Amino acid sequence: MRNFTHCVPTRFVFGRGAENEAGEQVRAFGGTKALIHYGGGSAVRSGLIGRVQRALDAAGVAHVALGGVQPNPRDTLIYEGIELVRREGVDFILAVGGGSAIDSAKAIAHGACYDGDFWDFFCGKAKPERTLPFCAVLTMAAAGSESSNSCVITQAATKTKRGLRSELNRCKFAIMNPELAMTLPPYQIASGATDILAHIMERYFTSDAEVDLTDRMAEVAMAAIIRAARVAVKEPNNYDAQAQLMWGSTVAHNDTFGVGRAQDWGSHQIEHELSALYDVAHGAGLAVVFPAWMRYHLRKNVMRFAQFAVRVYNCEMNFERPEETALRGIEAHEAFLREIGMPLTLAELGVKREDIPYLAAHTKKTNPDGTTGGVFPMMPADIEAILRIADR
Amino acid sequence: MRNFTHCVPTRFVFGRGAENEAGEQVRAFGGTKALIHYGGGSAVRSGLIGRVQRALDAAGVAHVALGGVQPNPRDTLIYEGIELVRREGVDFILAVGGGSAIDSAKAIAHGACYDGDFWDFFCGKAKPERTLPFCAVLTMAAAGSESSNSCVITQAATKTKRGLRSELNRCKFAIMNPELAMTLPPYQIASGATDILAHIMERYFTSDAEVDLTDRMAEVAMAAIIRAARVAVKEPNNYDAQAQLMWGSTVAHNDTFGVGRAQDWGSHQIEHELSALYDVAHGAGLAVVFPAWMRYHLRKNVMRFAQFAVRVYNCEMNFERPEETALRGIEAHEAFLREIGMPLTLAELGVKREDIPYLAAHTKKTNPDGTTGGVFPMMPADIEAILRIADR
Repeated sequence: MRNFTHCVPTRFVFGRGAENEAGEQVRAFGGTKALIHYGGGSAVRSGLIGRVQRALDAAGVAHVALGGVQPNPRDTLIYEGIELVRREGVDFILAVGGGSAIDSAKAIAHGACYDGDFWDFFCGKAKPERTLPFCAVLTMAAAGSESSNSCVITQAATKTKRGLRSELNRCKFAIMNPELAMTLPPYQIASGATDILAHIMERYFTSDAEVDLTDRMAEVAMAAIIRAARVAVKEPNNYDAQAQLMWGSTVAHNDTFGVGRAQDWGSHQIEHELSALYDVAHGAGLAVVFPAWMRYHLRKNVMRFAQFAVRVYNCEMNFERPEETALRGIEAHEAFLREIGMPLTLAELGVKREDIPYLAAHTKKTNPDGTTGGVFPMMPADIEAILRIADR
Repeated sequence: MRNFTHCVPTRFVFGRGAENEAGEQVRAFGGTKALIHYGGGSAVRSGLIGRVQRALDAAGVAHVALGGVQPNPRDTLIYEGIELVRREGVDFILAVGGGSAIDSAKAIAHGACYDGDFWDFFCGKAKPERTLPFCAVLTMAAAGSESSNSCVITQAATKTKRGLRSELNRCKFAIMNPELAMTLPPYQIASGATDILAHIMERYFTSDAEVDLTDRMAEVAMAAIIRAARVAVKEPNNYDAQAQLMWGSTVAHNDTFGVGRAQDWGSHQIEHELSALYDVAHGAGLAVVFPAWMRYHLRKNVMRFAQFAVRVYNCEMNFERPEETALRGIEAHEAFLREIGMPLTLAELGVKREDIPYLAAHTKKTNPDGTTGGVFPMMPADIEAILRIADR
């Protein structure tokens, strides 16, 4: 077990009707004028934005609104948000939506406190040192941005998608009402579940030994999320299934499963290129990339992939040929993704074969030696090979 | 799944040599003069107090010290600590030790900001509204006080032990070096592991359904802690086993396993009477009380006790007679406690049969109707019956 520091200061307010507490929570954290930041019109039409506005009114918190956040949130709207926040004297940002709205809000909050271009934080030119307080009213279980220290933004002009890790990326509070996820289309629920699982898997496939407690919790959490996802895509109105997914998205990304071990995150980096270039749903992209990544790397740590197969998907252990078990686990994962309606190939995502070299070359290098991935470092040639596995 | 709020703002600094970061952490949280609060001379003789003092010196944090915290920490030392803090202008309290030192530090921190008698907070006469910042340098995996919102103090004159739940009970940071637990006697390691397990069990034996994700994580965490405890009592120098226990103590009591469900805590209330009257180790008292509590209540929720047996202790499910399985689980838990050297009877603890009525009558009533326990409410007669089961 490696040395680590762990801190998740966010207050999670979970359950039916939780959005009605938004006003008093903003007030409790010192907000007097909030920017309500959200995506499409569905949050308005469903009445959610109205309920949030009434909660703010009741708590005496003034507010302005900025909608229009797109999946894979763009820098363009963030510049607009920063300008609005400064002009209106906003001191608190309230995101309503999923990871895109929350990440967009985080970037606005950092940018509003910075004299330069906020993109400096995402291209590595500067580190944020101050931010406005912000929070989330979650409508979708997926990105885990409500509990994570990460934020991912796309630069529209260059189709470059980049992430920022910083403790300033922590929400003050997160309102989590599983009922709000009931109106999502099954494809989005499935994408969300795939993203949640990927956040655990990025931490699970480690090279570190002596992480029994964390391994075990990660394994049963994956199995629980798989069960809940199977229910939720068929019965979006099942509160329990939505609740398991929504709390699961938080637990998956608050680093409970990542402490004391190396983490990979290579699959996420590869997927970022897909969604930057083709604007696909992040979870759907991960459904295509992750199994290919597993197939490519499994021989480097057969026993860990076999452990995944046995403990998460109840595969029988083949003691003579553990690699067979490891493969059965990947197949089981692919079958699950297929069952909930996820794509498994680049073609299903709409990704063109001829873009593979560009995607491989453009993937962010996360290590000082120019490779990508914390556990299985990859050169562009490795990434290209993985994308060719997904090109089936 | 019930509505809930969850927030653990503490920063956990975990691993070898972590105590050397104590000074900069105190500084980061604004401390300029610290009270080092600890127990017996072992922390001085081991050199730990010296290392903490040097870390504070290096960070430019002044410090005074107050040792002498006893297991089941007393109000008497807390009054002394409050007086010292005020006289010396201390603005940060640094506990070095296990739950007793941390709880004593919490009470001093609250009391130093209160005009009245700090015991008001423990007898229900007042609620703390302010506190000094405090932290822990943990030397023992047990109470989970480094991550919990609770604090338990004993009024020496009346032998009354009472707990306080408050969000003000959160440490600013906790330094967790598993090496520091290697010098503990096996009996203390075993008591600690028993306490950790009890913190999960108090949350696990719930009446709420639809808590799959949390249930599963609690079950594998219990199993992992059982495995680690078996190793640690035999090989106290095993870093991995100590690390699993130390991180386990935090995870067990940071409410990861308690969200969205009713929790009981009746066994803890009963045990508090034992350790208040006889000054036994809290974990050892729980080893006696909890199995008796399980035997007394199992027929009220046979399937949950059977689930515990099957999933935590790998008992085979008896589908014709689930109660048999439930009983096998309790027996397996008792056998584990015996294996690590814990007592199972009142006599082994030194508790006298004639005190049973006093203990039952004196147990704190936690519910408005005068009963004790959130899931299986108990009258004094129930508590007496449980203690008679333990009087075997």
